[in-house]
Formats: sequence, C-alpha cells, structure tokens
Amino acid sequence: MTDPLPCWNDGAAKQAILDFVAQVTTSHSSTFVPPNHRIATFDNDGTLWCEYPMYVQAFFVFDRIKALAPQYPEWSDQELFASVLKGDVKSALAGGEHALVELVMATHAGMTTDEFTAIVRDWLATAKHPTTQKLFTEMVYRPMLELLDYLRANDFKTFIVSGGGVEFMRPWAEQVYGIPPEQVIGSSIKTRFEMRDRQPVIVRLPELLFFDDKEGKPAAIQHYIGRRPIAAFGNSDGDLQMLQWTSAGTGASLGLIVRHTDCDREFAYDKSAMGSLEKALVEAPQQDWVVVDMQHDWNRIFA
Amino acid sequence: MTDPLPCWNDGAAKQAILDFVAQVTTSHSSTFVPPNHRIATFDNDGTLWCEYPMYVQAFFVFDRIKALAPQYPEWSDQELFASVLKGDVKSALAGGEHALVELVMATHAGMTTDEFTAIVRDWLATAKHPTTQKLFTEMVYRPMLELLDYLRANDFKTFIVSGGGVEFMRPWAEQVYGIPPEQVIGSSIKTRFEMRDRQPVIVRLPELLFFDDKEGKPAAIQHYIGRRPIAAFGNSDGDLQMLQWTSAGTGASLGLIVRHTDCDREFAYDKSAMGSLEKALVEAPQQDWVVVDMQHDWNRIFA
Repeated sequence: MTDPLPCWNDGAAKQAILDFVAQVTTSHSSTFVPPNHRIATFDNDGTLWCEYPMYVQAFFVFDRIKALAPQYPEWSDQELFASVLKGDVKSALAGGEHALVELVMATHAGMTTDEFTAIVRDWLATAKHPTTQKLFTEMVYRPMLELLDYLRANDFKTFIVSGGGVEFMRPWAEQVYGIPPEQVIGSSIKTRFEMRDRQPVIVRLPELLFFDDKEGKPAAIQHYIGRRPIAAFGNSDGDLQMLQWTSAGTGASLGLIVRHTDCDREFAYDKSAMGSLEKALVEAPQQDWVVVDMQHDWNRIFA
Repeated sequence: MTDPLPCWNDGAAKQAILDFVAQVTTSHSSTFVPPNHRIATFDNDGTLWCEYPMYVQAFFVFDRIKALAPQYPEWSDQELFASVLKGDVKSALAGGEHALVELVMATHAGMTTDEFTAIVRDWLATAKHPTTQKLFTEMVYRPMLELLDYLRANDFKTFIVSGGGVEFMRPWAEQVYGIPPEQVIGSSIKTRFEMRDRQPVIVRLPELLFFDDKEGKPAAIQHYIGRRPIAAFGNSDGDLQMLQWTSAGTGASLGLIVRHTDCDREFAYDKSAMGSLEKALVEAPQQDWVVVDMQHDWNRIFA
C-alpha cells in the first residue's frame, strides 16, 4: 500500500489521522459513518496556507487601498487610510477588527461579483509574500493538501470554514485545494441583484453580512452545511468553537490543530497580529485533539 | 437505451431537457460544460412538491401555533394569532409576508437547531394534505424526481433554492429528493452558538437573517454556491430573477417553468394565495425558457 500522507512523519499525529479514517470507513464497524455524513471542515489562514506576518487578504486590502488612492484624495486626511498609504502596517492594524472591516468595505464593495473575482485573480497572479518572495498560492502546506486528498479519496466532503472573505477565497480554492466554490464558507458582505443595461448583475455592498470566526464558525457550519462535521482542522482560538462543535457529535470525530513551530522552514508563533493559539491548546488534551508540531510532524512544508 | 424520463410525455418540453443535457455533456462540443460547472437549482414549493392551497410550511406554522397556544394565553387577544387559532386561514394570510414572518418567528425560534429538526421530522411523519389526505412528502412530483436523478446521473450537482425555511427543508430533502443538507438553500433566521451544561448548542433566534425569494434568489445562489447555475427550475414570479441570472451565463443554459394546469390530478392555477406566475410567463418565449404544461407533459404527477 502506498503511503497516503508521505509528507507526514510517522508519529502520533499521522497515526491518529490514519486510525480515524479507518474507524469511520470500515463498514459493519460500530464507528462507521456513511459517506454523506463524512463532512470535514478546514480553517484556511494558518491551517491550509501561511498567515504570517499577516493574512494574505490583508496584503490584498493594503495593495487595493494603494491602487484606489488616486480616486479617493480624502484618504490622505484619514488616519487609518493614511497609515496604509504610508506603509505603516502596524498603526493600521492597531485599530483591530474594526479598522480591518473599514478597510475591507472600502476595497471589497462597489463592484459586481464578477468584477471582484477578476480583481482577486489578477492580484494573486503576481503578488508576492514579503519574506519568501513566493506567490501566496505557493505558500499552501503540502501535508494539508495530502490530507485533503486522502479524506476525499475516502469519500469525505471537504469544506473551508474561514474568517476570510468568501469571495476572496473562491476564485482560487478549487485549483489550489480542490475545493469548489460551493464548499467555501467565509465572512461576507451584503449584495444586491440588479439589472444594468438589461443584464443581471450582483453588486457588492459596503455592509457586513456575516463574520465567520469563533462562535460564528459552528453557526456558519450549521447555516451553510446543515450537518455536523466529523473532522475539523484549525490553528488558533478562532477555531476553538468549530472544534468543540465537531467533537460534541455522537460518533467518532477528529479534531486537529496545526501548531506553527518551525522558524526555519516557516514561522514559529502561537500568537501573532492575526490571532492566538491559547485556549484551544489548553483544551486539546481533554478533548483528544491532535496537535501537529509542524517542525517534527511534517518533513516538507510548502507545496 | 432506457428512457431516463418515463413520466414525461414525448414533446417539446422533454426534448428540450434531453437536448440540453446532450449539449453540455458531449465532450469536444463547443457547448460542453465541465462537471464541476454543472450546477442546477430548483425552487421547491410548486416546483418539486405541491404548494396548493398553501405552502406546506404554512400548514406547519399553523399547527405549531395551535400546539404552542396553551403556553401563550396572550395569543387569543392578538388578532393574527387568534385568526390562526380559530382556523381562519384567510384572515391570517391577509397580512401577507409580514404576518407570515411574525408567525414563523413565533414558532421557528427559541429552540436549538437539533430540537427544531426533531419537531419538523415528527410533524411531517403524520401531517396530511387537507384535500388529498396524503402525507406531504408523498406530494412530490415524480417527473421532477426523475429529472433530478437524470441530471445527477449526468454529473450535475442539484440544489434547492427556495423561499421556504432552510431548516424546514433539510430534515427530509435528502431522503425525498436525494439532495443533501449542504445543497439546500432557503430563507433563514439568525442563530447563536452557546454552551449549555458544557455542551455546545446552536440556538435559533427570532430574527430574520435572509429572505430567499425573487431578487434574493440569485443573490443567494452567488452567496451560497458562488457559481452561476446552467439550469434553473421554478414555477412562479418568485423564480424570475433566478431564471434571468441563469440564462445570462455565457454558455448553454436551461430555464424551465412548471405550470400548474391539471385540475384533475393536481390543481390548476397561475395565481394562488402563495404567489403568481405572470411576469416569468411573459418573458419565457424571449428567453427560450421551457414551460411545462403539467396536464399534457406529465403522464404521472405524484410519486
């Protein structure tokens, strides 16, 4: 038999994954789960691709602010926008979630959904990570791609459940992760259907619809999927409630946390400007969640 | 070759369906559509199952009001609720959408999602249609079940896009239509994740989140699926914008309207207390939408 997870070193983490898949796919076993109930949910930033030093979508927002600035001269007088334009990321991020939402609204709304998709695709085709100088889509974790493939080969349906914008992820998630748009769940803004020159369009509005983080994740899972996952994968306290919801199911389940421990090949941190891994790490042993040590458990990191 | 649509009489409607499927599945043809883009969206009430004399969910709401009335003595003094309790459906429905939403909030919120699912299942197991005395789940259209199967056999992914409550449809849509919960899109109320006795639950709140009708349908399709359908099926003006959005795609597409013309085997109406088929019927010939005449095109109606 070929190893389905060659980038995973032999050890407790890999074994826990293999055991879990065997448990739920062995027919006539008490832990068997029928294929239509094999739902697996993955956080994106920090779980499937690099989120350090900040979310890829934050790089996108900052680049969009710079690109749009000539149309909005008033931005130079507004502290938040002025910080971004000066390249002062620290000040811009100091405003926390509220500031980020304001920047997102200024850059993610006012166009049709088709136009926004094109903007995201164009940007991702050339934008580079500041440290590695790689394309962001080259900074996905190869062991996690193997895991996605392995689960799908065992009739799992794989979903992204991310705090990131849903329309920011969909243009590339299918090609990069093999996850089609209808299985991408994320934060979203409101939209409006309208006719323009007798052609229907969907216009993006500068108003938050849903913020898919923390308590929002299990609520979104119920809202969009309508079925409890039997496997959930995350890397921070933003994923804690998704892991809790998954583990509270009646049958076998797998919870897994990717821990960033490799300062040579990636970055080593539990806390970053983007979030922290603290409560979920405390709860992990009680809940039997697998904690992946990237340095020791993965023999290769990037795809 | 076996006829994939035996309940459909030979004629223009059936031929249009067969031709469309051949077009998009013939590889190397200019009209070929890859499987992951074969999205088909179905309205539910009046398209997949009977909606006359009123939505099945309206029967559910009225029965729930009666069941809950002992806990809410104040309802007897409130006109809307009093009408329902007296069995005066006409007065209750006269308040239109606003009244219906108020009744839905009173009956669909305040419990966990698991509890609500159990209530729906229990009710559907015994509730009967007032005219036919059949279970509501026996009043699904067999020709449409054949169509769902036929499309799925040709690698289409089939979705429900309904004005009905998403959590009202999910408990039975998989068994009855073969459509899993994650492919059911509908109207929804807000929810909240919380811990009760250290167990995570999702609680249903009496606040509308999204109303999935008319302009809401294409917006919901983009929001939940993120990909434009190539086939859409409806029966009223509530489906007009979904049909427009589908037909405005760049490749081959199929729009189809189920018209209720059979007063012997079902009901004959373009207009009912629930909605009307008027604008979509006018637009159908210009857009090349198929209009199914239930009396002539279907040799069998119920499953």
